Amino acid sequence: MINTFCKKPLWECSQTLAGVAQGREAADLVITHAKLVNVCTAEIQEDIDVAIAQGRIAYVGHADHCIGENTQVIDAQGQYLAPGFLDGHIHVESSMMGAGEYARAVVPHGTTGIYWDPHEVCNVLGLDGVKVMAEDAARTPLKAMITTPSCVPAVPGFEDTGSFVGPDDIAESMNWPNVVGLGEMMNFPGILAGTDHAHGEVAETLKAGKIVTGHYSLPETDQGLNAYVASGVRCCHESTRAEDALAKMRLGMYAQLRYGSAWKDLPVLAEAVLAQDIDTRFALLVSDDTHPHTLVADGHLDHIVRVAVSLGIDPITAIQMVTINCAQCFQMDHDLGSITPGKCADLVFLDDLEHLQVTRVLIDGEVVAENGRATFDLPPFEFPAWVTHSMHLDRKITPDAFAIPAPKGTAEDDTVRIRTIEVIPGKVGTRETHVDLPVVDGRLESDVDQDVLKAFVFERHHETGKFGYGFTKGFGIKRGAMASTVAHDAHNLLVVGTNDEDMALAANTLATCGGGMVVVADGEVLGLVELPIAGLMDALPAEEMSEKVHALEKTWAEIGCTMPSPFMTMALIPLACLPELRLTNRGLVDCTTFQFANLEVE
Amino acid sequence: MINTFCKKPLWECSQTLAGVAQGREAADLVITHAKLVNVCTAEIQEDIDVAIAQGRIAYVGHADHCIGENTQVIDAQGQYLAPGFLDGHIHVESSMMGAGEYARAVVPHGTTGIYWDPHEVCNVLGLDGVKVMAEDAARTPLKAMITTPSCVPAVPGFEDTGSFVGPDDIAESMNWPNVVGLGEMMNFPGILAGTDHAHGEVAETLKAGKIVTGHYSLPETDQGLNAYVASGVRCCHESTRAEDALAKMRLGMYAQLRYGSAWKDLPVLAEAVLAQDIDTRFALLVSDDTHPHTLVADGHLDHIVRVAVSLGIDPITAIQMVTINCAQCFQMDHDLGSITPGKCADLVFLDDLEHLQVTRVLIDGEVVAENGRATFDLPPFEFPAWVTHSMHLDRKITPDAFAIPAPKGTAEDDTVRIRTIEVIPGKVGTRETHVDLPVVDGRLESDVDQDVLKAFVFERHHETGKFGYGFTKGFGIKRGAMASTVAHDAHNLLVVGTNDEDMALAANTLATCGGGMVVVADGEVLGLVELPIAGLMDALPAEEMSEKVHALEKTWAEIGCTMPSPFMTMALIPLACLPELRLTNRGLVDCTTFQFANLEVE
Repeated sequence: MINTFCKKPLWECSQTLAGVAQGREAADLVITHAKLVNVCTAEIQEDIDVAIAQGRIAYVGHADHCIGENTQVIDAQGQYLAPGFLDGHIHVESSMMGAGEYARAVVPHGTTGIYWDPHEVCNVLGLDGVKVMAEDAARTPLKAMITTPSCVPAVPGFEDTGSFVGPDDIAESMNWPNVVGLGEMMNFPGILAGTDHAHGEVAETLKAGKIVTGHYSLPETDQGLNAYVASGVRCCHESTRAEDALAKMRLGMYAQLRYGSAWKDLPVLAEAVLAQDIDTRFALLVSDDTHPHTLVADGHLDHIVRVAVSLGIDPITAIQMVTINCAQCFQMDHDLGSITPGKCADLVFLDDLEHLQVTRVLIDGEVVAENGRATFDLPPFEFPAWVTHSMHLDRKITPDAFAIPAPKGTAEDDTVRIRTIEVIPGKVGTRETHVDLPVVDGRLESDVDQDVLKAFVFERHHETGKFGYGFTKGFGIKRGAMASTVAHDAHNLLVVGTNDEDMALAANTLATCGGGMVVVADGEVLGLVELPIAGLMDALPAEEMSEKVHALEKTWAEIGCTMPSPFMTMALIPLACLPELRLTNRGLVDCTTFQFANLEVE
Repeated sequence: MINTFCKKPLWECSQTLAGVAQGREAADLVITHAKLVNVCTAEIQEDIDVAIAQGRIAYVGHADHCIGENTQVIDAQGQYLAPGFLDGHIHVESSMMGAGEYARAVVPHGTTGIYWDPHEVCNVLGLDGVKVMAEDAARTPLKAMITTPSCVPAVPGFEDTGSFVGPDDIAESMNWPNVVGLGEMMNFPGILAGTDHAHGEVAETLKAGKIVTGHYSLPETDQGLNAYVASGVRCCHESTRAEDALAKMRLGMYAQLRYGSAWKDLPVLAEAVLAQDIDTRFALLVSDDTHPHTLVADGHLDHIVRVAVSLGIDPITAIQMVTINCAQCFQMDHDLGSITPGKCADLVFLDDLEHLQVTRVLIDGEVVAENGRATFDLPPFEFPAWVTHSMHLDRKITPDAFAIPAPKGTAEDDTVRIRTIEVIPGKVGTRETHVDLPVVDGRLESDVDQDVLKAFVFERHHETGKFGYGFTKGFGIKRGAMASTVAHDAHNLLVVGTNDEDMALAANTLATCGGGMVVVADGEVLGLVELPIAGLMDALPAEEMSEKVHALEKTWAEIGCTMPSPFMTMALIPLACLPELRLTNRGLVDCTTFQFANLEVE
């Protein structure tokens, strides 16, 4: 695959590199006295110099002969030098920051390249929205490699989105210079059923010689997983048990071991590579979704590598999982993923292999971060108005809108057995749990004693007025309401609450500010994170965004929820490609059978 | 990279594969009860079935559900099932057989794909000749993947070839459906010097998103090797010491550990992966040049894997070196190299992992060999006359042609110190050895007491009459002469002998029969292998060709040479891209400095 993310393609500078390697020409930069993390042979090589020219590595060894009058020299002083870290599966939008600010946040943590599925913004604003986000990213040194969103909507027929992507769009996008593959094929039911739509998108990607990334979240790892892999899907980040990851690797699929802010699968998945004495080349470490607070407090891939090492994975093996393994997964190892001649000079300085603190980062041979701070300029980015005005509701939402009529044929004080979406802290899955609710005034209401709350999803893209409702369980909320336009993946307006007045206030607060996340109680807005970019992001630095989100998290606690990052868990309530029960703007969806479900248990 | 060697591209059959994996459609073939050699995780999985449809693997597991009325079932009865073996660097021409017959010889040994640099035939007949050879190969199931010859001539300016290849030819050939990369870049001096020609060829390959294969035979593994790798060369089969192979792997270059008929580097190179506890993903096993006798007596990649295992390399690791590692080297691992869903059903049955006897071979889901015999049809191939009439000498060669005048200023009975090309049995390298010869009748003659023989190379492609001469040492020949049109890489007419009459007879015998290899003595032809296809090959089955070559080898012994495969060693005398001293039709070449050398030592 031709990589257009380097400073120059190799064929435009190979003669220079050959000259520098032999000392005929001076290097632009030489790093001296490093302990090289050699991810090709899985060794540490002591006291190595690396010579760089035209943004690429010209020479690895003892590089005195590459140093000329104008050569910059950086003495690594015995620090470890690893290849730039690559995140094989990431949604920038989860950081709630624009891509430029995201880059500024993650690069100091050693991230030099991301494989970004911008399906959040695409659901709201379509591929034009993706282009705007990519422009923001392109102002930074971060290699923001795009996998075109495959599932917009996530599960066709079950929700209304702002946009629609099909095989023709995929085919067209494969000509974009920044597209390296197909975004996570969440429509595994379509793949398994053999639909033209799902297979057509895969086909257009394969025809272009690019990589199909996956999302297979079923616990079934036999016939279904085989069918999914046989269809051309090359990697998957949706493993929740060690046997899932192992099954994928055995079937030649890259298992992307996830450790995001809210879905922390790695500790369980690490067993797949620890308990078995297997070749680990098919294992990657990925973040998927990272909260701004995590970026500020813990880091990004550096943090995930540290977690892997703390779990007993050898440090070099863990570093391979964010470098060469990822580059091989995307067949970009001729340009990325190792510190070897000809590759992009994307380099990470590490103090040691125990604490794995990133002290300096280079991309294309330029220092882009030192001691945890990005050193590149990032002027404000002008987002067009259609990007920052994405709330398109058909009316002002009143408390009446939240009435849930009792099923026909029930009488006052009857008990109705209903399905609820029970959330699981720190997991992407939900459980379908059955609860008995009384009929009150001909309606069903939230019941804080049973920890059961009403949930509504309002279409917000095309003023259709369509909405769905149901109940959720497990948040521990005692009063008030929450709303969010971060509501995967259609990002309609999601409202959850204990009473109709607060729910209406929450909804209208977001309608007014252009989207975001809000917590209200007793007629008062307790916490608000405005996210004017597509209702998903704001162009703030990570520290500011983190503080805002942290403040919001506190207000969740005020009304009774002590779950970590509860808004991320709430935001998945509409995500119909994950088990077991979900709520979209069209209603409850049984995500094991992919059929609409009745509220009432039959 | 798009692989056009499969029965169907994956995107044309993914829906079928998904259906078969789930038992909705019946497989074409199911293999049951195999011990799966899983090269992804480096494990053996017991009692595995593999279901196949449309030439690809649909399912790996327990495949009862894939078996329908018309499904063929093969019970592996507990045999091991490995992915088809891939030879990452091969010249079919060295087998002296046409590509069709070559395929018939190697496929029963488990070889399902070859990365073929047809530079022998290209030197004689140009890229048109390559096309004809590829047509012959395409009639067989073997995946004959071509790397366009980069170095025709091998070292420009030092010899006359039948053809010339430059960057424009490379660019054009990258559009051929059967071209997957650039053939071995033997012109490492050009790469190191930064010439437009060498870098231009690499550039055209990289622009096409294809793989550049290498040939770096210098013992220097520092600045020169770095420059070579930095220029975009991805693999190299020219390692003769363990440290060469290790240096290449550390620099992210695939080290192709060679075990051919005449160049048996693997025993030494195995140390690179045995002595160090390194990741071996960058190691391949390749044959480079295989003699027909070796194919018949020992096998092909199966033999090389057995040798690797006998040297202490773990059998699964050795099998990885001819399967997934090779597929990853060529970025074709999405189609080849593992027994996983979606890949081509190229499969090898092995009796056990100790003897590694191949009992059955499938390509694209069809049984193509059983118990050592190819089961596919191969009708005779009609080679055009310009292919079978490639001897274009400007005259009949007389004994006078072999006179070597003594240097000017020398008198009768003076002693002249001359350079000789000393051959090393079983190695591709030669030594420059200095020998004192007397002046006799104003000439220098062969001296069997010192084991020194006259050697001549006559241009045979364009009737230019150009020839070069020198002396060689080390064959042990006592009488007679030998000639060969297999004379790497220009394949001019090479004649070596003890006396001028026999040398002329040897030369003219080949001129008459269209090329080949001959041994004569005392005015009599002792042995002749006719090679009418480009003077390099004959379309005979391996057994017949092996017998012919074996008979010729015996005649070498009759005249005093007991070296194994001496004609292969002799055939490298003109190969100016290998150290130390060589002879082309333009004269002696010092292959360490790449300058013409005088016969007389100054």
